Amino acid sequence: MKRREFFRNGTLATLGATLFNPFSSVANVLNPIATSGKAKNIIFMVADGMSTGTLNMADMFLNRKYGRSSNWLGLYRESRGTRALMDTASASSLVTDSAAGSSSWGGGVRVNNGALNVGPDGKEHKPILQKFKEAGKAVGCVTTVPITHATPAGFCINLGSRGDQSKIAELYLPLKFDVMMGGGNDYFSAAKRKDAKDMYQQFELNGYTVIKNRTDMLAQKGGKPILGVFADDGLPYTLDRNQDNTLQDTVPTLAEMTKTAISIMNKNSKGFVLQVEGGKVDWAAHGNDAPALIYDQMAFDEAVGEALAFAEKDGNTLVIMTTDHGNANPGLFYSDMANADFDNFQNFKHTNEWVLKQIRKGDTASRVVEQIADAQHIAITQAEANDLLKYYNSVSEEGLYNEANLPLRKLAEIQQKYTFVGFGSMEHSADYVELAMFGPGSNLLKPFVKNTDLHNLMLHATGMI
Amino acid sequence: MKRREFFRNGTLATLGATLFNPFSSVANVLNPIATSGKAKNIIFMVADGMSTGTLNMADMFLNRKYGRSSNWLGLYRESRGTRALMDTASASSLVTDSAAGSSSWGGGVRVNNGALNVGPDGKEHKPILQKFKEAGKAVGCVTTVPITHATPAGFCINLGSRGDQSKIAELYLPLKFDVMMGGGNDYFSAAKRKDAKDMYQQFELNGYTVIKNRTDMLAQKGGKPILGVFADDGLPYTLDRNQDNTLQDTVPTLAEMTKTAISIMNKNSKGFVLQVEGGKVDWAAHGNDAPALIYDQMAFDEAVGEALAFAEKDGNTLVIMTTDHGNANPGLFYSDMANADFDNFQNFKHTNEWVLKQIRKGDTASRVVEQIADAQHIAITQAEANDLLKYYNSVSEEGLYNEANLPLRKLAEIQQKYTFVGFGSMEHSADYVELAMFGPGSNLLKPFVKNTDLHNLMLHATGMI
Repeated sequence: MKRREFFRNGTLATLGATLFNPFSSVANVLNPIATSGKAKNIIFMVADGMSTGTLNMADMFLNRKYGRSSNWLGLYRESRGTRALMDTASASSLVTDSAAGSSSWGGGVRVNNGALNVGPDGKEHKPILQKFKEAGKAVGCVTTVPITHATPAGFCINLGSRGDQSKIAELYLPLKFDVMMGGGNDYFSAAKRKDAKDMYQQFELNGYTVIKNRTDMLAQKGGKPILGVFADDGLPYTLDRNQDNTLQDTVPTLAEMTKTAISIMNKNSKGFVLQVEGGKVDWAAHGNDAPALIYDQMAFDEAVGEALAFAEKDGNTLVIMTTDHGNANPGLFYSDMANADFDNFQNFKHTNEWVLKQIRKGDTASRVVEQIADAQHIAITQAEANDLLKYYNSVSEEGLYNEANLPLRKLAEIQQKYTFVGFGSMEHSADYVELAMFGPGSNLLKPFVKNTDLHNLMLHATGMI
Repeated sequence: MKRREFFRNGTLATLGATLFNPFSSVANVLNPIATSGKAKNIIFMVADGMSTGTLNMADMFLNRKYGRSSNWLGLYRESRGTRALMDTASASSLVTDSAAGSSSWGGGVRVNNGALNVGPDGKEHKPILQKFKEAGKAVGCVTTVPITHATPAGFCINLGSRGDQSKIAELYLPLKFDVMMGGGNDYFSAAKRKDAKDMYQQFELNGYTVIKNRTDMLAQKGGKPILGVFADDGLPYTLDRNQDNTLQDTVPTLAEMTKTAISIMNKNSKGFVLQVEGGKVDWAAHGNDAPALIYDQMAFDEAVGEALAFAEKDGNTLVIMTTDHGNANPGLFYSDMANADFDNFQNFKHTNEWVLKQIRKGDTASRVVEQIADAQHIAITQAEANDLLKYYNSVSEEGLYNEANLPLRKLAEIQQKYTFVGFGSMEHSADYVELAMFGPGSNLLKPFVKNTDLHNLMLHATGMI
């Protein structure tokens, strides 16, 4: 937490300065960090599937509960950094998926949805972390979803389709990237993989340190490349982890992974490039799971705080903050009591996914009402509970990342009546998205960019082109 | 159209320049218009209730159908102007209404939802157009909703509650503002007002020229203040107007009103301040009426084109483009055929509101299927038509600006299956919103502002404080 406090204190001082002169132009007199010149390091932060309402709700929550800005929007409030809108389309669609989204940055070319740095013409485009590795930089990825998922993969490898994560684990092996951490035991463990290959053993044979829990991760000092895998699939949602001592002991936060990765890779004399993904922000949006979404966006923002604190101290680091696409376009909507309705989330102890997993076929409506009151401090009606129970008997919901067919949409509809947070869909959107930069190279950012523009911008900022 | 073409040609030339040097910093070498210095004129453009997806869909539509940017986002693509995120909260809520939203700019103070420049403590804050009028500038408002509606009223008057538009018409009378145009015959006509006062006569007695149709409006040359009222309530939606020769002859577009207002008010030697509101963007969002929303946002953008073309030629005009709050958070969401689904809107001849008004109790499902196919080129199913018909018999929908209790939400849900445009609510959202400026004074804009900041920014930009 020290770095974050350092950063917050730093920003409060500059915030004071802006209040005295509210109409000075944004000439960066407040900003001791150069915006131009060569960046030695890049930290590329992706809140996957972050619609504008997601960024906004995390910031409002922090303001209302703690009286402070999110780290991301704090930058704006202090007139630091640069920002843009980004067009996120893929080669095949106005609405990208994460594979094409990450490939646009990673390979600099729009590919069809589902592809990883393989163009519609079959041509392979070299992923940016391979370019930086060849130039002598330390490189790596940390994420809250499997490390073999689309967003990290798009910075690392070429593959026609994102679907085969076991294959992606194999493609990572020869790269010898410095830090790869997240979930995904299903794709590394001999007991889980269909082919029964022990990928952990393979990585160790290839010179890696393999770690599987938070304590070991926090003890890492570098020296050897690190593979860290802390869950079978994605990591638990932040809100649920906060209620579970075992998870807190065994699973690191995104901010902890970010801080560890930075401190290890910063030992490399030629600098580093790190991708940080808040991947479960996207999963929460797919599930219209408002508490999961808000708390995981705040966890992402804590990682942003780590990145900015390092960059502020270091002075040679470009931090990029963005998302690959909108998802579900959530928002806090009007009610007579919007503030109080939104503040309900402060009392939530668990995500909607967690709550729905507790419900069993045969539960009574009264029991469901009680369970939701316990976990979320919301008093739904018996009729609403019966609506939910139908999904445990006669009907069923389907959805991405909803293998258990939980009635996530139904609960979101019910919950909207109490929290007034709503969603337009359970899918990605074509919205142009928020993009911000801080540090040397941030002056290269134009007000409107295509996702692909970031590839050359990163190479340009580091002096590689 | 000439001014718009001039502007488009101008921007194409500068766009060419950016392509040669894609990584130059945004130092405004492309921009022949000063960003600092004193603004003589201000054009304040409000796309009321415009979520980020609304701005984005209009731009995507224009790109796909005509191969060009919206005028608003064209500015960004050409690295011109400045932009910010704006916090839109009111004194009483994270989610503002249009009265408190406009008052934040108009009076510089956050008031409770529903109030017009009257604070929670009962204190009245002088509306900004009164300040500019006293300073010798020409001032006015044009809108596609009643000219007595909240957004224009927030720049003009003080009133505890926005609800009484007949009263607002009376409060406008002594102000002698130079151009006031929009809908709202219901609040001026002796035949429509409860008190049977002939407000038109009152305005004429007070020195106004009163006009009631497009032809008369286009003939205006100024000299006397103008009151223009072109519909009982709001003006027709752009898409429906486009199909109706009578409406095209009698009702001006927002761009035409904007151009006329500018050309009249620009004759004033001390300059002018004009508010332009795309008010039916908000009504369309309240109705989850995607075709109405997209076409009215494009009509707003055409008015933006008029404002920017004037500002570019004039060099002394600050153009501000924003919204008072998000509404319904629409988006184009993922489907296997998202591009083709979105392109459906190119074939729409009518809004959802228009379509639903054609349906009568007792219509057959086949008839409804046919009506929607004719008006919107979408082939809904018999079952979906029957779902709609229920609302003409047993059930009923309510909603703001939905006096006829049309099943707008139901049609939007059905339509989402074909167009993949969805909505999260039928209400305003708390999202932070897009804000852009062009011309002298635009350098004053910080990356994150509160809505109230714009009040002093306008006074500062014009040298009044």
